[in-house]
Amino acid sequence: MKSLKQMGKDELLRLKAELEAKFEDAKEKGLKLDMSRGKPSIPQLDMAMGMMDVINSQSNLYTEDGMDCRNYGISDGIFEAKKLMADIMEVSPDHVVVCGNSSLSIMYETISRSMTHGVLGHTPWAKLDKVKFLCPVPGYDRHFAITELFGIEMLPIPMTENGPDMEMVEQLVASDESIKGIWCIPKYSNPQGISYSDETVRRFAKLKPAAKDFRIFWDNAYAIHHLYDNDQASLLEILSECEKAGNPDMVYEFSSTSKVSFAGGGISAVASSFANLSEMKKFLSIQTIGYDKINQLRHVRYFKNIDGIKEHMKKHAAILRPKFEVVLQVLQDELSGLEIGSWLEPKGGYFISFEALEGCAKAIVAKCKEAGVVMTDAGATYPYGKDPYDSNIRIAPSFPTPDEMHQAALIFTLCVKLISVNKLLEQQSY
Amino acid sequence: MKSLKQMGKDELLRLKAELEAKFEDAKEKGLKLDMSRGKPSIPQLDMAMGMMDVINSQSNLYTEDGMDCRNYGISDGIFEAKKLMADIMEVSPDHVVVCGNSSLSIMYETISRSMTHGVLGHTPWAKLDKVKFLCPVPGYDRHFAITELFGIEMLPIPMTENGPDMEMVEQLVASDESIKGIWCIPKYSNPQGISYSDETVRRFAKLKPAAKDFRIFWDNAYAIHHLYDNDQASLLEILSECEKAGNPDMVYEFSSTSKVSFAGGGISAVASSFANLSEMKKFLSIQTIGYDKINQLRHVRYFKNIDGIKEHMKKHAAILRPKFEVVLQVLQDELSGLEIGSWLEPKGGYFISFEALEGCAKAIVAKCKEAGVVMTDAGATYPYGKDPYDSNIRIAPSFPTPDEMHQAALIFTLCVKLISVNKLLEQQSY
Repeated sequence: MKSLKQMGKDELLRLKAELEAKFEDAKEKGLKLDMSRGKPSIPQLDMAMGMMDVINSQSNLYTEDGMDCRNYGISDGIFEAKKLMADIMEVSPDHVVVCGNSSLSIMYETISRSMTHGVLGHTPWAKLDKVKFLCPVPGYDRHFAITELFGIEMLPIPMTENGPDMEMVEQLVASDESIKGIWCIPKYSNPQGISYSDETVRRFAKLKPAAKDFRIFWDNAYAIHHLYDNDQASLLEILSECEKAGNPDMVYEFSSTSKVSFAGGGISAVASSFANLSEMKKFLSIQTIGYDKINQLRHVRYFKNIDGIKEHMKKHAAILRPKFEVVLQVLQDELSGLEIGSWLEPKGGYFISFEALEGCAKAIVAKCKEAGVVMTDAGATYPYGKDPYDSNIRIAPSFPTPDEMHQAALIFTLCVKLISVNKLLEQQSY
Repeated sequence: MKSLKQMGKDELLRLKAELEAKFEDAKEKGLKLDMSRGKPSIPQLDMAMGMMDVINSQSNLYTEDGMDCRNYGISDGIFEAKKLMADIMEVSPDHVVVCGNSSLSIMYETISRSMTHGVLGHTPWAKLDKVKFLCPVPGYDRHFAITELFGIEMLPIPMTENGPDMEMVEQLVASDESIKGIWCIPKYSNPQGISYSDETVRRFAKLKPAAKDFRIFWDNAYAIHHLYDNDQASLLEILSECEKAGNPDMVYEFSSTSKVSFAGGGISAVASSFANLSEMKKFLSIQTIGYDKINQLRHVRYFKNIDGIKEHMKKHAAILRPKFEVVLQVLQDELSGLEIGSWLEPKGGYFISFEALEGCAKAIVAKCKEAGVVMTDAGATYPYGKDPYDSNIRIAPSFPTPDEMHQAALIFTLCVKLISVNKLLEQQSY
């Protein structure tokens, strides 16, 4: 297709009229589609309903080592669940604490604890004049919301196809003691679906932070969330890399089954060094009576082991893959060659990230909404909700059906074209 | 029986020899009994196993208002669960947020949030030179552990048979702006089993704190945990009393089903004013993906309503009552008239509190341990684990069987006598 950037004013005006007519038609269909959040779809949730049968009134709810999961006790998770979550993260179970239904909560609590009590004996962050976090962008809005809430200054780090710009990361953490952490989604990143290269992981492990209490928040949310059987990202295991590099305490890794079993009814875990875990457990023994061990046991009894989980994830992939493919196909068919946007083709995770022409993202999202298609707010993928280029849009294809996704993607590309034409016309009028 | 305080040295020495012989016999039995924590017993847990059948793979997991409990969404709890927890606390459901498996976590988070972000726009506590909490004593060690962790100074307030010494509470909160809260267990208090009188509750509601961000932490942990059908404490509802008194935001009430369904597998809730809840919800939307709605639904489907819960609590009472009664009977039989200890007769809750002669509690608990009976550490019922009188001992009769409790109580009273005799001899030698 001809690049819109090569078009003269008249040609653009004709196209604009044509697109506007199409948009009015689309609007009349009165669609109501929500592509705003990475929610599992109903068939995905249905798939895990067997988990509701593995524990019934006749079940023995004791762990292998004789702990009654129905009673108080064990604040760091039952061993069987540690093993399961450890295998997802490819670490050893003794480096794992299994928590409740939300890994986001563990991240929040880790930051909150660092604010009030500091990290391994270092000054509580709340007592420092300035605390900063590095935020690879585009990234996950709920990460950024936590650091914003605690008044932590967020510095955006551009993503590359191999992960965050490591030269920038290295220089910043080495030179600025107020930089205390970085948010990472190392595999099938939210929203781009990028997986960090081995070199990126090694460079992370070898960081020489000025701050001794600098921590990598390694949110391995999509560790096993592949779309394809034969084209899967593999991620170097960060805990052992950090240990090898002499930085054993530098990373907290997070994971959960929110998009494996049930979103909100899953279990979560953190993996880290013994020193970090021992600090965490000290707090856990005060802040909670322990997490829900029955639900931990339910997960173990249902999935049995990592192979069981991997089989289950193949079924998720079978449901998600067509939705991703339909979006990518429509993007390809409708926008390829127009030079008004770019995107990657993720091999896993929950999102497709779209880069519109600068200054167009908010207008595209607003236009989609007018036609009944709700996207994540433009800007959400940047700290403070402010994309300096107003360019990134996150597409969440998981919840609608493939047919709905097809309709939604057509409306999305229509809006991209319409807003881009307007932008180009605007630019030509200068 | 003759008071030990009336005995002369020779008589005490003879008694001592006799008790020591009995103690050696007892030790030889090699008992292993744990009365240290308020854990439900296995038959109590078995009673709720039916809850594991109300949701199976064929179940519809939608709420009455159409929310899929298996997916993301709703950070303040499903309506049905709000209603259930509201009825336990005798408040309106719109004043309730339903949380995860631990009400202690909500208390911890409330304090943590007050430290970092303040209460309804007031200065964050962490930025104040001094923050103090009032702690009715004897009280709950896990409350005190939270305030201690955050460096909050704890001021003990003596308990009376009607609740905390309200004159002291009134004077302190009115005169000291650094007093930001008070820990209360208003019904069947831990450890004494005291229920606050109507006058006490009204005086709480009418407090005139110097600190505008003073909050009552009303841990209504034993709201429905009666031992008797016909002799039940009733507690004035504090939210409405506070509202009537013009202090609508002064209280957070907490509750859970930890000792109704499963300890660790239950649900919890907080009740408070709209202003307080709205602040809490703002944080919840950042700190978690939401609580486990499937477990909330499981509780609602099993208990159905407050009547279902009350019926269930009668079964708990039937199991707990004989254990309390056997302890009280042994205390009566073995210690009555000796003037070496006092106790109350709780009508609900999980504990019996024993006041030994001053300076004897630690030694009694140590002596019991020598004979295989583990009690809560002496001092645990006071802030910083330090009972200035070394007098209070918490007895937790819930977990052992009645027969075990009988043996344990006999050993306990034997140790009380032995240590008291030693103490009296010591005093006579001055």
